[in-house]
This record gives sequence, structure tokens and C-alpha cells, in this order.
Amino acid sequence: MDHKYYFPEQERFKRQGFPEAIYAPGKTIDQIISIAKELALHDGPVLITRADKKIYNFVKKIFKKARYFELAKLIVIKYAKDSGAKNRKSYVCVATAGTGDIPVAEEAAVTAEAIGAEVKRVYDVGVAGIHRLYKHKDILLNASCVVVCAGMEGALASVVGGLVNCPVIGVPTSIGYGVSFKGVSALLTMLNSCAANVSVVNIDDGFGAGVIASLMCRKEKSKIKD
Amino acid sequence: MDHKYYFPEQERFKRQGFPEAIYAPGKTIDQIISIAKELALHDGPVLITRADKKIYNFVKKIFKKARYFELAKLIVIKYAKDSGAKNRKSYVCVATAGTGDIPVAEEAAVTAEAIGAEVKRVYDVGVAGIHRLYKHKDILLNASCVVVCAGMEGALASVVGGLVNCPVIGVPTSIGYGVSFKGVSALLTMLNSCAANVSVVNIDDGFGAGVIASLMCRKEKSKIKD
Amino acid sequence: MDHKYYFPEQERFKRQGFPEAIYAPGKTIDQIISIAKELALHDGPVLITRADKKIYNFVKKIFKKARYFELAKLIVIKYAKDSGAKNRKSYVCVATAGTGDIPVAEEAAVTAEAIGAEVKRVYDVGVAGIHRLYKHKDILLNASCVVVCAGMEGALASVVGGLVNCPVIGVPTSIGYGVSFKGVSALLTMLNSCAANVSVVNIDDGFGAGVIASLMCRKEKSKIKD
Amino acid sequence: MDHKYYFPEQERFKRQGFPEAIYAPGKTIDQIISIAKELALHDGPVLITRADKKIYNFVKKIFKKARYFELAKLIVIKYAKDSGAKNRKSYVCVATAGTGDIPVAEEAAVTAEAIGAEVKRVYDVGVAGIHRLYKHKDILLNASCVVVCAGMEGALASVVGGLVNCPVIGVPTSIGYGVSFKGVSALLTMLNSCAANVSVVNIDDGFGAGVIASLMCRKEKSKIKD
Amino acid sequence: MDHKYYFPEQERFKRQGFPEAIYAPGKTIDQIISIAKELALHDGPVLITRADKKIYNFVKKIFKKARYFELAKLIVIKYAKDSGAKNRKSYVCVATAGTGDIPVAEEAAVTAEAIGAEVKRVYDVGVAGIHRLYKHKDILLNASCVVVCAGMEGALASVVGGLVNCPVIGVPTSIGYGVSFKGVSALLTMLNSCAANVSVVNIDDGFGAGVIASLMCRKEKSKIKD
Amino acid sequence: MDHKYYFPEQERFKRQGFPEAIYAPGKTIDQIISIAKELALHDGPVLITRADKKIYNFVKKIFKKARYFELAKLIVIKYAKDSGAKNRKSYVCVATAGTGDIPVAEEAAVTAEAIGAEVKRVYDVGVAGIHRLYKHKDILLNASCVVVCAGMEGALASVVGGLVNCPVIGVPTSIGYGVSFKGVSALLTMLNSCAANVSVVNIDDGFGAGVIASLMCRKEKSKIKD
Amino acid sequence: MDHKYYFPEQERFKRQGFPEAIYAPGKTIDQIISIAKELALHDGPVLITRADKKIYNFVKKIFKKARYFELAKLIVIKYAKDSGAKNRKSYVCVATAGTGDIPVAEEAAVTAEAIGAEVKRVYDVGVAGIHRLYKHKDILLNASCVVVCAGMEGALASVVGGLVNCPVIGVPTSIGYGVSFKGVSALLTMLNSCAANVSVVNIDDGFGAGVIASLMCRKEKSKIKD
Amino acid sequence: MDHKYYFPEQERFKRQGFPEAIYAPGKTIDQIISIAKELALHDGPVLITRADKKIYNFVKKIFKKARYFELAKLIVIKYAKDSGAKNRKSYVCVATAGTGDIPVAEEAAVTAEAIGAEVKRVYDVGVAGIHRLYKHKDILLNASCVVVCAGMEGALASVVGGLVNCPVIGVPTSIGYGVSFKGVSALLTMLNSCAANVSVVNIDDGFGAGVIASLMCRKEKSKIKD
Repeated sequence: MDHKYYFPEQERFKRQGFPEAIYAPGKTIDQIISIAKELALHDGPVLITRADKKIYNFVKKIFKKARYFELAKLIVIKYAKDSGAKNRKSYVCVATAGTGDIPVAEEAAVTAEAIGAEVKRVYDVGVAGIHRLYKHKDILLNASCVVVCAGMEGALASVVGGLVNCPVIGVPTSIGYGVSFKGVSALLTMLNSCAANVSVVNIDDGFGAGVIASLMCRKEKSKIKD
Repeated sequence: MDHKYYFPEQERFKRQGFPEAIYAPGKTIDQIISIAKELALHDGPVLITRADKKIYNFVKKIFKKARYFELAKLIVIKYAKDSGAKNRKSYVCVATAGTGDIPVAEEAAVTAEAIGAEVKRVYDVGVAGIHRLYKHKDILLNASCVVVCAGMEGALASVVGGLVNCPVIGVPTSIGYGVSFKGVSALLTMLNSCAANVSVVNIDDGFGAGVIASLMCRKEKSKIKD
Repeated sequence: MDHKYYFPEQERFKRQGFPEAIYAPGKTIDQIISIAKELALHDGPVLITRADKKIYNFVKKIFKKARYFELAKLIVIKYAKDSGAKNRKSYVCVATAGTGDIPVAEEAAVTAEAIGAEVKRVYDVGVAGIHRLYKHKDILLNASCVVVCAGMEGALASVVGGLVNCPVIGVPTSIGYGVSFKGVSALLTMLNSCAANVSVVNIDDGFGAGVIASLMCRKEKSKIKD
Repeated sequence: MDHKYYFPEQERFKRQGFPEAIYAPGKTIDQIISIAKELALHDGPVLITRADKKIYNFVKKIFKKARYFELAKLIVIKYAKDSGAKNRKSYVCVATAGTGDIPVAEEAAVTAEAIGAEVKRVYDVGVAGIHRLYKHKDILLNASCVVVCAGMEGALASVVGGLVNCPVIGVPTSIGYGVSFKGVSALLTMLNSCAANVSVVNIDDGFGAGVIASLMCRKEKSKIKD
Repeated sequence: MDHKYYFPEQERFKRQGFPEAIYAPGKTIDQIISIAKELALHDGPVLITRADKKIYNFVKKIFKKARYFELAKLIVIKYAKDSGAKNRKSYVCVATAGTGDIPVAEEAAVTAEAIGAEVKRVYDVGVAGIHRLYKHKDILLNASCVVVCAGMEGALASVVGGLVNCPVIGVPTSIGYGVSFKGVSALLTMLNSCAANVSVVNIDDGFGAGVIASLMCRKEKSKIKD
Repeated sequence: MDHKYYFPEQERFKRQGFPEAIYAPGKTIDQIISIAKELALHDGPVLITRADKKIYNFVKKIFKKARYFELAKLIVIKYAKDSGAKNRKSYVCVATAGTGDIPVAEEAAVTAEAIGAEVKRVYDVGVAGIHRLYKHKDILLNASCVVVCAGMEGALASVVGGLVNCPVIGVPTSIGYGVSFKGVSALLTMLNSCAANVSVVNIDDGFGAGVIASLMCRKEKSKIKD
Repeated sequence: MDHKYYFPEQERFKRQGFPEAIYAPGKTIDQIISIAKELALHDGPVLITRADKKIYNFVKKIFKKARYFELAKLIVIKYAKDSGAKNRKSYVCVATAGTGDIPVAEEAAVTAEAIGAEVKRVYDVGVAGIHRLYKHKDILLNASCVVVCAGMEGALASVVGGLVNCPVIGVPTSIGYGVSFKGVSALLTMLNSCAANVSVVNIDDGFGAGVIASLMCRKEKSKIKD
Repeated sequence: MDHKYYFPEQERFKRQGFPEAIYAPGKTIDQIISIAKELALHDGPVLITRADKKIYNFVKKIFKKARYFELAKLIVIKYAKDSGAKNRKSYVCVATAGTGDIPVAEEAAVTAEAIGAEVKRVYDVGVAGIHRLYKHKDILLNASCVVVCAGMEGALASVVGGLVNCPVIGVPTSIGYGVSFKGVSALLTMLNSCAANVSVVNIDDGFGAGVIASLMCRKEKSKIKD
């Protein structure tokens, strides 16, 4: 009977440790609370992305343990169950080219932490002063995955990709003016990267980068347990 | 003396198991042979990408063990040292939407194999006949990483991303006509994916996807050894 | 005398059951009322699109039977004459990928209803959780036409197109961020659809989709009467 | 047991009268023959699109009844079963702006005919000499669906849309030079159409337009039979 | 001495009847007044474009005869000297597709009038109801030049171009939504026009169209005088 | 009976002196000859554009008086009737920025001549050596219309527009490399021209520019005759 | 020991006379002050770009000698040390096409002055009235470098490039409407310049142009001193 | 008499040491020879760009001293007069990211040498292996100007810009595939450079970069002589 597909099982499989997120823009507080309640029934971490403080104040009343990360504009309603037992051998490095890229980087970092990954931050190490990058050589070289957030020309992803031997996730940010085209230039730079270990997510998509990066760490843990 | 950076070390670190590739277009046979000889001195696997049979015939004279993968247009001069000892618990799944995407998929698959990863292929499972995808449910759900190659609307990456809980690497292909814009539409679709575990590489960049996918498998192995 | 063209007749022909709509943005209340009065002289349904509540309050004073659909931002001044006598055998299915696409979907649905079609709604069934779509299999398979509203990567139109054997009208929505390019990515995805039964209207053009979808139902009715 | 989905049934449902097509470019003769054989097992019509005469010569040896339409570059291996019994009340009108658009129009027309629709052709009636269009007023006004193929500025779709009260399917063609951008300008014109009954398919996608147009005719027939 | 160029003469030549305009956006009232005073010393008409009422109130204090055209957002400080003696045999026809295009059309019309041309307006004659256009056949056929203002798909320029035998100046307007791309689609349509007598100016550039159109009328006059 | 439109009359009106052209690319010799025969029945000049010598050789056999302009790739089958009686007071100036723009310029010039206008050529006067332009000051200042053909940055149209007081028609050419984008950059430059008397036609559309320019000269003549 | 790289030295080398700038948008006053304090420890000039008066008021309290340039939106905290001893033989000419380009020009000019270059301003000399440019012939011909700021069609850079024999730096500005595309058209024009001595910076990047221009003057000085 | 402009003088001024170049594509041998003869009458160096060997063979017959640079596809007909007396204190550094960028780099280098500048080449130092760049630190730091040729992501210009304190001229090359968009991505990267000393020329415009770079060296010399 190989033509019957049991989706409910698949759904359960997917959700183990996989984050559930509510994208706040365009939703009413009621909608957000209602979706959050449903998602909180599952095992995985629950997040609200691009949320302002006002939303947090409402959410906080229902979910007492909810935490707000202002820079990342992220509410973590619930962390992954085993987040206390982090795998000490593996961590995500989140890097930015400039200070303007930090909010996106924080979205990635807090997301990864909510899923249970350890995160090390290396901020403001853009290529126009590349010696700043090398000060953090050790953190970069030992990471399981590096998330690089950069706007303008976005060249940092290539430089980091050429340095490390783990996967690099480029997050183009909308920082810049003129022909930065709100992140499109940085996106193109990263997609064209001459370093073969760089893949890319949507502009300003710190959440996506955080999910993928933490999956890389998590997998290592789960495989070890097998 | 923390301001001295020992690049030679870094270079060595990077190259352990990391692939070296020669992009054939625009290079003479002599240039290719010459670069290949130098790269072959290192530990990692050595590949020539986008190479036609004529190039292979020359290469074969120098590198007796070189193998040619016609569909992938890939010459593997040297495999990763430990490729015989594959980690049985981890494999890369390479999927395509249509038959036209197979050459790119093969570039990804052969690259990953050259680095030492096990690869399972799931071809021709595009979203216009999505029941074909579900026949391969088990292969997809147990992969360490899924590489999805798709042209035209490129929707397969999102569908797979919604199904599995490992990272998915989208490779937009230049297959299509009209507003496929030689892969740009598929690229945009993948970058906009509503599935949070999808990251993307350049159009037709099977090599990059193969590298990243194999790094995910490899890391698991190396971490276990630590 | 085959070179004389009697446009007035053609005009009358066209208007039987064909909707007349006033696009509100950039028009004064007086202009809207004035055009509405003229259009109401014809047989077809009369609508005001993209209208806010303020406009409705004015319109309501003149057209006592006018109804306002807040989500759709649509005022129906007059329904099609025979809308009470719906063809029970035929209906339009309006589907959305996410909750953000609902306003556009409602514009399509209310438009189709104003013209006299029966509409069934299937909302929030995007491809990242494709099992949600299959719960509505029966509604989809028996529709005369499916309108699919989706932003971001817009992949739902292809998936639905591959499932049903009636025409599918894709409505890309401006929902998304970064490289969604305000609906352009979803538009390209839909135009590139590998499912041959998908045609597409302008971004956020729920009205157009509603008109076309209802014409498909209506035709069936009129032909039966012949 | 509403969570089990029987795809094989769905597949069968979809295929009743729904065309199967093989896109020839990039496929070997062997691949084409092999796929054609498989598709010919189903009930629906079978077509090979964008095929040159050389392919036809091979196909003809296997499928004795295969017909080649040179202008359309289309091989019809098998017509829809009931194509002999055309519904006399319903037909598709296929129109072109210029002579350069005729190959795309023929792809649409022959496809629709293969599925079983009656087709009336109205060619070379572009808007720069709009009196030519009006000579065919009757054919246009009584069609169940009009397919408009136009390159350059693609304005014909709007003009026809404003004239008729059935759905119009715009097919932008790659005819033109300079800022025609190989059909993109015509595509934009059609998507922006101020006539609400116009939907659009990919550039040069006569096949898709033919499928959708014939579905509109076919539905009428099937519903009458019910 | 053919290598000496007497620019002052050229300047004087150019300015006979040629309009001088001040583009108001981004200029202070003082700057506008100051430039206006200087320009008013020449023979030609003087205009301030894209000016709001507030600017007019200031300008009015200095230039008593200044007139404000609210729809056109145009202040005419000074008309062309011989504007009273209009050439009765020649006029500009200014047409629009929709009501939203009227402000741009008025900018063209008032500009042409300020330079001394007679203008006939034919508004709201878009191609989706092309019979409305034909009601004004005589005005169109006898014009010296037709200015066509249209947004969305901009098809009116082609239709008018195919009808008349004088030059047509297309003015794409930023009216529309989605893929109208703020006038770019209409611009492309007009540039691709299959009618050979259509040339185009920048999006919303009613002023430019008004200048060119009036130059065509004016030339006729001046030549007659010769 | 104002709702009957006599198109045949309009057609006749339009065709007096208005050119008929056959765009050769994509047409067979037979098609070209056949259309040419039909067009030659009317009063206006008849041209075949973008035609190579091979086409001319065939055409020449049928139309003994046909002339071929190799640079312009233009065949003139028939000149306008009154072309011998040129208005001596009025001429078109055709200018180019570089030598690469000359073929397009010749298409414009020969077209205008075929319609009956006098043409003066001013070639190779691009803005990087603007002193070359001023050598032709007199020809420019006394023209009825200047056609400016320029590729690359296309700045010549603005410079000429600022110099003369007649209408200027910019023809962007596809000359250039890199970000010339095959004429798009020159097109944008011309559309953005700060000189108000510049309007623009499609890239490489010398024919369109020639038509419009000659209409300006012709009108003067016809009006004088009235 | 050629594999050790002493970045601190390099850093010092770079900073001699090289400007340090803080891009104000998106930074808090505290961040700006804090970075400014650190940068002020080096030898080079220190600037805050795109700063409003409010920022200046805070900065002024800490840096008593800070000066504000309102048009340029630039705060100069510290001038280059040797700026008093300007090289009399060398200066930068900063030119604009229109008055709207002056803010960008002032950013370039004040930046260059802060670094120690002498600057001569030639404003409002756009190509539509090119005689205005020639009035400043001497200033242009004797400059070490000309910075040309122009929006809309940006043609001035080419014209100046063709006139002078020093490097020209084009700064496209976001001035314009319609297809000016916020500076993209001007950018393309400048990149396509047929004058070989023109290079280009980002849209509105007066700061970058000012830096490069002053480096050209400075180098002359430093070389003379050697 | 300040309104007379003596262009011949200006022309002479401009041409002192300023290169004259003939862009070969699209010109006949005769045209090239003819232009070359005229240009050779002036003082400056004379070059033919993008010329193949066949052209050289013809040119060589007329200009006995002409030299061909195959990689650069450049014929130098005549060097700058004082090229033997190079300023020893100043040189141009030409760098490339990859081997594919070398032809463009050679166009820049040979052009600069023809004008009289000394050139030092630093090839194949792209950012994915940035340690290779630092091996050439001294050459970079002491250059008067660095020309950086890079395709794909073009990040090298920013990295070099951050390292040196002289002007950097970025030359995006058309090397790459997919979203390299034939050099557009590299162009955007360079324009967005966070290093303030980077300006950019057109894609593959090695000639322009060579001219500008040599002007920087030359100026130093000329000023010293003054």
C-alpha cells in the first residue's frame, strides 16, 4: 500500500526541535496570540519575528516566560526543550560587516539560541578594514557554521568563505544607499561568491539563517546520540 | 604578539578535505593541467568543472586515475582520501524537478561524492505532479542535507523544505524559457521560500551545492572522531 | 455595408452580466458617486474597489443597498440580476498560501459573488505545509476554476495547477520582503508554472481574478440556457 | 481516515482529457520516444512541443498516426478521444497582432484542437490598424475564450478584452526588437490590462494558452452531460 | 574665422518663443522667485511646474498676472507674446486613457497653451472601451500633433498612432499598481508601438510633451510668415 | 447616426503620404513580395526595413525601380508621389554621435527622403569632442526637426536639444558594451533629457524617427497648400 | 619571515591624511560621539556624513572646533593637519549640472577641503545650456581633478571629460523623476561615457568623490616633498 | 570678448599626452587605417582596442612600429613621446582577482604603458584566498593608483581599497555565470564599496582604467616640471 501517505506522522517528524515562527507584520495582536497558543502545543521552540515592544507587552501577559530581544525585534515564547544541554563541541559564529547589520545578525543569533545552538558573535569586521576580521580568526576557524550579515557590497561572505572550511550562510542586509538597491547588491555579491562554501538566504532574513545554522549544530548532536 | 597572522597555517587548515576545483571555461588545456598538478599536491579532492570530453582526453594522459562524468561535465582527478570510509549514518539527497535539471544535479552529486559523502538521487519529482515526490519520502526525511535543483518556477525547494527537517540547498537552474530569465525566476522563488531551512547558491552552481552538502556530512564524521 | 460597426450594440452585448468597477484610489467622493450612478443604469453588477470605510459611508447614503466588505476593501453597489439563482453545479474555489494573502483573495471572492458565482474559500494552505492543502482536496478537484492568491515565492499556484484539471488563475500578492520585490517574484513563479493550466493576473489584482473566474461559471450557465 | 490521500486516484482524475506534453528542447530522440510511449497509455491527448521535423521523422516511425504541424513546431501523437464530437456551441478564437506571432498562435490553436476544442483563427489584426480587428467582430463576440498572441507592445489583448465578454488569455510573444525585451514589454502590457477579463501566460507559451482555452470549452461540454 | 562660436546669439535664437520652466520640487520660494524674475526678462513664456498652491500664493504677489492651474500644478507667469494670435489651422489634441491621467494631460495642455498653441482635450478614451475614442474621431484626425497620456498598459498611444497621420507624443503616466511599475510598463508599451508615428517622453512629463507639441504648431506658423 | 464609424475613409486619410513598411526579419521572400505588391497599390511610399542584399535581389526582379541602401539595410520600393517637389524651406537634420550609429541614422534619413523630406546629415559629432558639433551649428539651428542617433551614453540628444528650438527625436542605438545594455542606457539618458524638446523612439528605430521627422516637414507643406 | 603580516603598520600607513568618516544614518548620538572620539586619536581628518543639525548640536558640545555644513549635511570634527599649507598648484574643481545637485557637490567639496585640497566650485552648468559651462573653461582646464555631480541624464560628466585632460569623477545624483530611477540613469550614462577619463562612484556619494579627488591633489604634494 | 570660445586651442590642450583610441569592433580595416593615420598626426599615443590579429596584420603594413598585445587585444601604433623618460617615483599597480580577468587587466596595463606610466602587475589575488594578496603588500602600498580587475562578486576592489591610501579604480569584468550578469554584479559590488577611495569604470573597460591611472602618474610628472 505504498501509495498512502501519512502526513500527520511527517508533520510530527518535522517538528521535533524545528522552530515555529510567527511573522508579526500585518497580523493583529489577537491573531498572533492565537497562533502562538497553537504552536506552543508542539515540541519545538516558538518565536515571533519582527515584533515591536507593544506586541511583546501583550504577549507577555499570556506567555509569562516570553523574552523580548529588542535589537533583533524577536520574541522567544518558548525555547527548544534541550537547549540547556548544549553540545559544547559545536557552535554557530554570527559575523557582521558593519554596525548597521547587527539587528539582522541578532535575529539570526537569538533564533539559533532559541533552537538550542551555542552562538559566538563577531561584529563589525567588514572588508574595508580586514585586519579586524583576523583578530577573530580562532572563533571563525572552529565554528560549525558561520552566518555572515553584510549590506552594501556584501563582500565579507566571500572573504570568510575563503578562510573557513565549514558552511557559510550569507545574509544580505538592506543597509546602504544608491546602488545597494536595499540589499540586492549584497545578495548578488554573495551568490557570486568565488568561495564554494557560501549559500545565501533572502535579504534581512536573519531568522532563516539562524534556523539553518542551528540545524547544522543540532544534527551533529542528534547523530551522536543515535 | 597577537597581531601576526600565520596564513600558511590557515591555508593548511582550510584544505583538509576541502575540495579544490578548476573552472574549465576560458582556460587552455595547458593552464588546466598546470593548475591541476599544483592542486594535486594538497590533501583534498581535485575537480575540473564544466569540462568537455576533449579536455578529459588530455587530462587523462597526465592523471591516469582521472574519471569523467559526462552528464555533470566534471572530471575528478583525485578523490578525498577517506572517501572509501563513508559515514553510513549520513548522506546527501540530490533531487531535481525535471529531467533538464539533471546535469546540474549530477555536478552536485559527483562533487559531493568526490569529497567523500554518500549521495542518494531523487530525480524528476517536480511540483506539477507532487505525488511523485512522496514516493521518495523516506530518502528525503532521513538525509543530512537535501540539494534541490529546479528551473522554471523552482517551487520544489519550498515543498521539500516544508517536508524535511534538515537544511535544504536550492540550486536554481537555467532551464526554462520566457520569464524564467535563465534561472533568475527560480532563484527568486527559492530565496523567497516560506520554508525556513532553505538557502540558495548561484544559478546552475551544482558544484557549490555539492561542496556545502558534503561539508554537512563530513562535519558529523569529523566531530565524532574528536 | 460590412464596414459600418455598430458599437452601441457591442457595448450592450458586453455589459450583460459583465461587472462594472470603479477603482477608488485618486478619485474624489463626488467623482465616485457620479460614475456609480451612471454605471448603475446598466444591467451588470457595480463595484467600487480599494475603497475605505469613509467612502462607503458616503456611498451608502445614495445607494441604500450598497454593502461594504472590509477585508476586501470592496463596495458592492449592485449585484448581478440573477445572482440569486446560482448554478449549483459550478463554483469558484479561492485559495491562499498565507493569512496575509486573504485581503486579495476576498477581493476576488466578493467580486465573483457579486457577478453571481458561488465561491468556496480555502485559506492558508501554502506549500511549506502542503498537507494542509490536501485536507481540501475535494473542494479543489470539483471547482470550475481555482483562484490562487500567494505572495513570497508564489509556489502554491503550480502545486494546485498540478492537482486539478480546471483552469487556475494565479494572483501574485505583494506580501513578503527582500527579494519578494512586492509581488514580482510570485508573479514570475506563477508565469513559469510547469502546470499548463495556470494563467496569471497583475499583482494584488483580486478583482480581475474574480471577474475571470466568474465568467467561467457564468458561461456554463448561459450555454445551458441556450 | 481523512488523513490518507490516495494520489493514484487524483492522478487518474486529472488525466481525463487533460493533455500530456513533452517539451522537446534538450531531450534526445530516445528520451522523447520513451516518454511518449508511457504518456500514450493514458486517456488524454499527447503532444510534443517545440519539435523540429527531424524529431517528427523519428516519432512517425513509432506512432504511425502522429501528425506534424510545422508552423507550430508541434507533433500530435494522439488526439483526445472525443475530439470528433465537438461541441458546436463553443469554440476558441485565436488572434494575433502580426504575422510574426502566428507560430505561437498555431501552437495554441493546434493544442486546443488536439484536446478537442473547435478553434477559429483571426490573424494579423494588430492595434495599429484596428479596423482590421472589427472585420472579425462576430467571431470574437461569440467565442467561449479568446487567445490573443502579440509581441512588441502587446496592446491587442486589452483592445479585445474591452470588446468581448468572455475570458481572454494573453500570450506575449518574443517578437520585436530594442525595448520589446524579447516579450517582456508585451507581457507587462497584458498584465496591466485595463480590461478585467484578461489573464496571461508565459512569453511564447502557446501550449499553455491552448490548454486553458480548451478547458473552458471542455468544461461546458462535460457539465452539460452531467 | 569659423572656429569662433557666438553662443550669446545662439542663446537668443533658442529663446524666441521657446518656453522657460522652473521645476519647483526641492527649490525654496526665494529661489523660485529669483529664477522667475530672471527668466521673465526673455521673450518666451515662463512657467513653474509641479507647484502647489502655497508657492502660487507667493508668486502671485510678485507676478500679478500669474495664473495657477491646480490640476496641472502649473503656474504660468507669462504667456508667449503672440499667444493671442493663434494659428486657426493648427491645434494640439491632448488625450487621456483614464481620469487618473488628467493631471499629466493638463500639464501638457496648459504648457502648450502658454507657448501659444490651441489645444483640444479628449479625455478618458482608453482602449478597454475603444468606442469612446471613435466619438472624437474628427478632433483626432485634424490635429497637428496628438499628445496621448496613459498609465497602466499605455496602449492608447498605439491605437491613436494607427488612426492619425500626424506625430503622436506618448506620455506614460505613473497611474496603476503592481507591474505598472509606476509608469515603466506604459513607457515600454509606447516605445514598442507598432505605429511608426509615436515618440515618447519621460513618465509624467506633461511639460515636455506640451513643449514639443506646441513647437510643431508654432513651426507651421513661423514658416507661413516667412 | 454618429455611432457609425466609416473606417475605410479613415484608412484612406491615414495613407496619404504616410509610409508603409515591411519589417523583413522573420518573413520569407514570398511573404515580403506579396505584402509589397499589396502596399504598392496605395499612394504612400513603400519600404522594406532591415533587409539584406539577398532580399533586394529578389525584390528588384518584381519592382524594377526598387533601390537598395546598404548601410541602412533599407529597400525603397516606391517613393512618395510628390517627393520631387520638396519644400525648400524645411529639412530634417540627422546627426550621430559616432560612426557606429550611422546605419541607424541612414535608416532614418533614407526613410525621411522616401517620404519626401529633405535631409541633411551631420555625423560623428559626439559629446566627448563637442567642438565637432559646433562646426555644424547652422545646419542644426535651421532644421525643422533634428534626429539624433547615439549609443553608449546617448548624451548628444540633450546637448542638441539645448541648442536648437525645434523638436529633437532621440534614437538610442545598441552601440556600446558593458552597461550600455544594448541601447537601454542611451534610451534612459534621452528620456531623462533636461532639454524639453526631446522625445524618443525605440532602440535602433531609425525608421520610426524618419517617419516622425518627415511628418513634421510634410505638415508644413500640406498646411500651406490648404 | 615573509609570511607574517604586520597589519598595525599597514593601518598606520593607510591613515596618514586619509579621512575617517562616520555615516550618521541609523546610529545613535552616543554611538556617533563614541566612534568620533576614537577616530580623533588618529592623524587624519574626521567627518560625520549625512548628519542633521540636531546631531551637530550634540557633537559641538564634545568637539568644540567641529563645524557644520548644512547644505552638505556634513560635520567636520577635525581637519587634516597640513590643510593650512595647501599646494597652490593643484585644486579640485567640483561642478554640478543643476541646483538640485548642489548638496551632493558640497559633500564632495567640503570633504576634499577637510582633507586639505583646494576646491573651486562651478555650479549649474548642465548640458541643456552648455554655453554656461564654457564660461568656466579656465577653471576646468587647470584642475587636477574634476568632480561632476549630475542627476537626470547625467550627461555633464561626458562633456567635461571630453574637455579636460585630468581625471573626472562622476557622481550621479538621485535628482529627477520617472526613468531617472533615483540616479540609476545618471549612473549608467556616466559609466558609458565615451570620454575615457571618467570614473564613477555610487549615487549621491559626494563623500567618496571628495576623498578620491583630494587624494589626487595630495599625492602631488607628497611626491614633491619626497 | 569672453563669449568667444577657441575650441581649437582647447583641443590642442587636451591632446598633449592624452591617448587617442580606435575601438575596432564594427569598423572596417579601411576605416581603422584611415582614422589611425589622422590620429597619428597628433602628439599623443595612438591605440586600437579590441583588435584581433587579422587587423594587426593590416595595420602593421602601414605603421611599421605598431605592436600587438594579444592578451589585451590591443595594438599600440604610437607610444607617448616621453614614455622613455618614466617617472621612477610613480607607478600604476594592476591587480586581478582571477586568471579570467587578465585580458582586461592587460588592456589597462598596456594602455597605461603606452601613455608613459610604469606598471606593476599583481594577478590572481582574489578574496577567496586573501593570503595571496598580502604577498604583494609592498607593491600595493607604494603605487600611485591601483587598478583592480575582478568579475563574479568583484570584492577585491573593496579589500584593496581598505588596504591602500591611493585611489583605486575598479574594473568589473564579465567573467562569471548565473547572477554575475556579465559583470553587473561585480560593478554593483565595486560601486557599493565601503572603501571610500574606489571609483569604477564600465564593465571590461580596461582601456578607460588605464587612461585614468596613467593620468594620475603623469600629472605628478607634469606638475613637477612646471
